[in-house]
Amino acid sequence: MLSARTDAAYPSSLELPALFEQSLRDFFASRREAVETIGGGYETAVDTLESFVLRGGKRVRPAFAWTGWLGAGGDPQSDDADSVMRACTALELVQACALVHDDIIDASTTRRGFPTVHVEFENLHRADNWNGDGAHFGEAVAILLGDLALAWADDMIRESGIGADAAARISPVWSAMRTEVLGGQFLDISNEARGDESVEAAMRVNRFKTAAYTIERPLHLGAALFGADAALIDAYRKFGTDIGIAFQLRDDLLGVFGDPSVTGKPSGDDLRTGKRTTLFAAALARADDTDPAAAQQLRSGIGAELTDNDVDTLRTLITDLGAVDDAEARIATLVESAAAALESSSATAEAKTRLREMALAATSRTY
Amino acid sequence: MLSARTDAAYPSSLELPALFEQSLRDFFASRREAVETIGGGYETAVDTLESFVLRGGKRVRPAFAWTGWLGAGGDPQSDDADSVMRACTALELVQACALVHDDIIDASTTRRGFPTVHVEFENLHRADNWNGDGAHFGEAVAILLGDLALAWADDMIRESGIGADAAARISPVWSAMRTEVLGGQFLDISNEARGDESVEAAMRVNRFKTAAYTIERPLHLGAALFGADAALIDAYRKFGTDIGIAFQLRDDLLGVFGDPSVTGKPSGDDLRTGKRTTLFAAALARADDTDPAAAQQLRSGIGAELTDNDVDTLRTLITDLGAVDDAEARIATLVESAAAALESSSATAEAKTRLREMALAATSRTY
Repeated sequence: MLSARTDAAYPSSLELPALFEQSLRDFFASRREAVETIGGGYETAVDTLESFVLRGGKRVRPAFAWTGWLGAGGDPQSDDADSVMRACTALELVQACALVHDDIIDASTTRRGFPTVHVEFENLHRADNWNGDGAHFGEAVAILLGDLALAWADDMIRESGIGADAAARISPVWSAMRTEVLGGQFLDISNEARGDESVEAAMRVNRFKTAAYTIERPLHLGAALFGADAALIDAYRKFGTDIGIAFQLRDDLLGVFGDPSVTGKPSGDDLRTGKRTTLFAAALARADDTDPAAAQQLRSGIGAELTDNDVDTLRTLITDLGAVDDAEARIATLVESAAAALESSSATAEAKTRLREMALAATSRTY
Repeated sequence: MLSARTDAAYPSSLELPALFEQSLRDFFASRREAVETIGGGYETAVDTLESFVLRGGKRVRPAFAWTGWLGAGGDPQSDDADSVMRACTALELVQACALVHDDIIDASTTRRGFPTVHVEFENLHRADNWNGDGAHFGEAVAILLGDLALAWADDMIRESGIGADAAARISPVWSAMRTEVLGGQFLDISNEARGDESVEAAMRVNRFKTAAYTIERPLHLGAALFGADAALIDAYRKFGTDIGIAFQLRDDLLGVFGDPSVTGKPSGDDLRTGKRTTLFAAALARADDTDPAAAQQLRSGIGAELTDNDVDTLRTLITDLGAVDDAEARIATLVESAAAALESSSATAEAKTRLREMALAATSRTY
């Protein structure tokens, strides 16, 4: 039970990330011998992956999974707690794969203030004056390390120590979650390539790349780990989908209106990078209906080289078209329906409190 | 049991590929609903992955796994046979990931006479005149489809229907196999980038990228599926490692001396593409010891634009340095030690016959 590892036999939300990180450290240690047997520099590459995984992130997915288990009746002081902790933490290895591969796909050069994995190996290649193209080498290593994280996510959940019944219950959830997030990523790049500007297309990405993957399925996984009944699972999934979509809508607003000192990204980042969010799609749809000149301005502005003044102009347009009010209203409705689903569920009082706080943190206006 | 699906209740080696392919078709059909729910073109992308997986290949890995199970005492007429067939077939989905991602890493444009997956999506992007860079789009989709194949490999083995005991037995084998093949791929690109010309470095790639992944671990998996004893597992692993390395040494010879009409590749393909095989490393080591001018010729030739005459010159050099005789001698020794391990094992007579044939097919001189 967890008390062996922490002073808190019943860890608070704030204490969870350190526990997930300890699970990750233990897991990487368990692979050490196999990796060293292969040798030839593989150890160093795996160390880079471990540093990447441990470097940060809010551990949102395992936190929802763990809290889902707690709310279904899981007891952090029971002997099951360590196994459940490990199974929940495996979500962070899926996430490591998603981030490492997404950074190649998006050609991102930094993450969490550090070079992305492919850039790190590109830099190494350059610094040591190796043969061939450094950028291609960096991507190749990052593809393989992302694959390793994905394979190890499965190892981690399979070796978590949960019982055969729990393993059977979570199997379809785990399967759906991975198929959905990869689908969401595919839709994201495919919409952009096809120039699909519709709100519907953007919402589909939100649904699968964010909501299902980040909140709905982690909660579902936690519930299945405990063996919750269908009613609680339905309530969790309703809560998770609504909060997940509201979270993405909030993120879309931050991507256009967020304060760089808070978001850590340039002002109007989504406009500059040409991200086709629901917010932008809604503004565009409204402009197409009512203001062709504004539609033209939005289309020529998105993804272009923008001055701060250009960003301000686009922001004003998006606001004046009513897309911001619309997004705020949708967020409020979603948060409300999520709260209702949670309140009327059989989740424990402690979990309800925690999930309300997590929902608030994910969807509140912070810009 | 298998008789439900085939006339042969006890399928011959020749009948196996069709059975593996049926398992793959059934598995893809089982994902259909989840993929259609996500929609937005994901179905079409998954269809491309399915076509790629079904298009060919010799199904070597599931064949070794199945034959390993058979040799340990598995009965194709028993009720376990269908589950075992599915678990063995999951290896083909790991292989799909390895091929799709390797083709990005090696910048290969064709495989089995068709465009590689990343090129197929690049072509689609171009044909439909989509936004952005077609080559980058193709790679992005191929990264995601490779990930999906890897995730589905785990789903397939987890949903195969094998019992909890068998699942626990194969877990460490499955884990080792994936960690090893990704390590072998990493070593391959890392050796090339670092310009490591040693025989030792090339052998390490052979050991993990080919031998462990293609023969040793599949046999081990088959044995573990049945619950074979340690002595048979040791014999299989010895046989698999030796035949696997011999297979790679033969492949290295074919890569330099193979007949294009048989190999389907240009003459001297490994020399033209600059592949750092054990054969080349051994020739180079000998040249460095005895003939600096030859070493110079080898180093300037490998990976350069080569005429057929240049290829002939390098071939003669490699032969005259004794590297070919050395490789043939090593292959003969490995095949012999593998045969000895197999003969003295407790594998069934039927499996011994099949494994001998499979070893012969993998290591014989066919150029």
